[in-house]
Amino acid sequence: MADTKAIVFDLYGTLYDVHSVAQQCNVFYPGQGTKISEMWRQKQLEYTWLRSLMGQYISFEQATHDALVYTCNHLKLYLDEKTCEVLCEAYLNLSPYPEVPGTLQRLKDMDLPLAILSNGSAFSIDSVVKNSGLREYFSHLLSVESVGVFKPDQRVYTLACEALGLLPSQILFVSSNAWDASGARYFGFDVCWINRRDNTFDELGTSPSYVVGGLDGVPEIVRGSVSST
Amino acid sequence: MADTKAIVFDLYGTLYDVHSVAQQCNVFYPGQGTKISEMWRQKQLEYTWLRSLMGQYISFEQATHDALVYTCNHLKLYLDEKTCEVLCEAYLNLSPYPEVPGTLQRLKDMDLPLAILSNGSAFSIDSVVKNSGLREYFSHLLSVESVGVFKPDQRVYTLACEALGLLPSQILFVSSNAWDASGARYFGFDVCWINRRDNTFDELGTSPSYVVGGLDGVPEIVRGSVSST
Repeated sequence: MADTKAIVFDLYGTLYDVHSVAQQCNVFYPGQGTKISEMWRQKQLEYTWLRSLMGQYISFEQATHDALVYTCNHLKLYLDEKTCEVLCEAYLNLSPYPEVPGTLQRLKDMDLPLAILSNGSAFSIDSVVKNSGLREYFSHLLSVESVGVFKPDQRVYTLACEALGLLPSQILFVSSNAWDASGARYFGFDVCWINRRDNTFDELGTSPSYVVGGLDGVPEIVRGSVSST
Repeated sequence: MADTKAIVFDLYGTLYDVHSVAQQCNVFYPGQGTKISEMWRQKQLEYTWLRSLMGQYISFEQATHDALVYTCNHLKLYLDEKTCEVLCEAYLNLSPYPEVPGTLQRLKDMDLPLAILSNGSAFSIDSVVKNSGLREYFSHLLSVESVGVFKPDQRVYTLACEALGLLPSQILFVSSNAWDASGARYFGFDVCWINRRDNTFDELGTSPSYVVGGLDGVPEIVRGSVSST
């Protein structure tokens, strides 16, 4: 990585723990929070991929809603409108991973622009970063909304280049989602995969430029880059 | 359904049981066949969706291979080349569901053309139907190969209209895969979802025209159509 001019982060699962919603799920469905949260997240992703392929784009909030409805149907859990609303709102109040705030500060001190590129709507991204007090760290919050298709469609990654005025190779893209990291790598970003839980990287024909165990591994990568330019 | 002129079937999971490979998996990994088969199938599907979105099409055989490699990596099972080859070949020798041969005969007796439209390569589709002795029932075996993208990209469903010279509304599309049934419905086919295992239909904004518990429910639907024309 010879020439990093900006860092672009995925949001869901990378900066923020999507499974922090399990706590809210447990309030309504005691003891089932983790199971619900895991199926909910899996279906949410599938729905973004499938809707994109069908040419039937909907907002990320709608995909999140639909995935929760499926999950409760499938697990035979009663879901009224109010519960659905409260649980979907939990996705606007995700917790950042513990090392995230401190690491963002260290990266900001390096004078590189930091951006988020997310499947979330502009409203969702804005809500999540504001509700967690991290808005100040980001120069750009980029949503797939403007292209009407979800990751890993290559048009999404283009948004970061356009917004930052940079070439793909000048951007370090950081994601915990192996499929997102793969899509970004095909696009031409340098990619850092965050593997917090001993996950297995997907066999999609490409591999990340860097692998670290948490966001706090990123500053060292950037320092390496800066020193090598 | 007023005007059915042909029936188009999905192959994997609809006419043929993809989990019949569990038996072969059990030979190499005793007691783990079902777990392997389920993760393998899930990843196989994900890889077709993700590769399509990334614009990185590969053959279905390659996706099947890659998904098996992921599965064994993830489950920490040693997979040598020979084992990988043998297990992937199991996908060329899938078992039809028990009611399939008899039902195909009944449908053929109704003088409607029967076709398969599948993510599989031409070679895979041909192998599966020949190895199970069902080749004679189908007028067309249609593979996504010619469009270089997987279901539910709408270009795939177009292949059936082109090959059969029919409008979408003149085709009854039959699938056990809810996401495939949804994609086909958006395209404009009449769609019959086969729900053999009390599955939950996906929340993708559309629903099947018909739901039956096995392929043997299809002739009645077609008779209804024929009588109503």
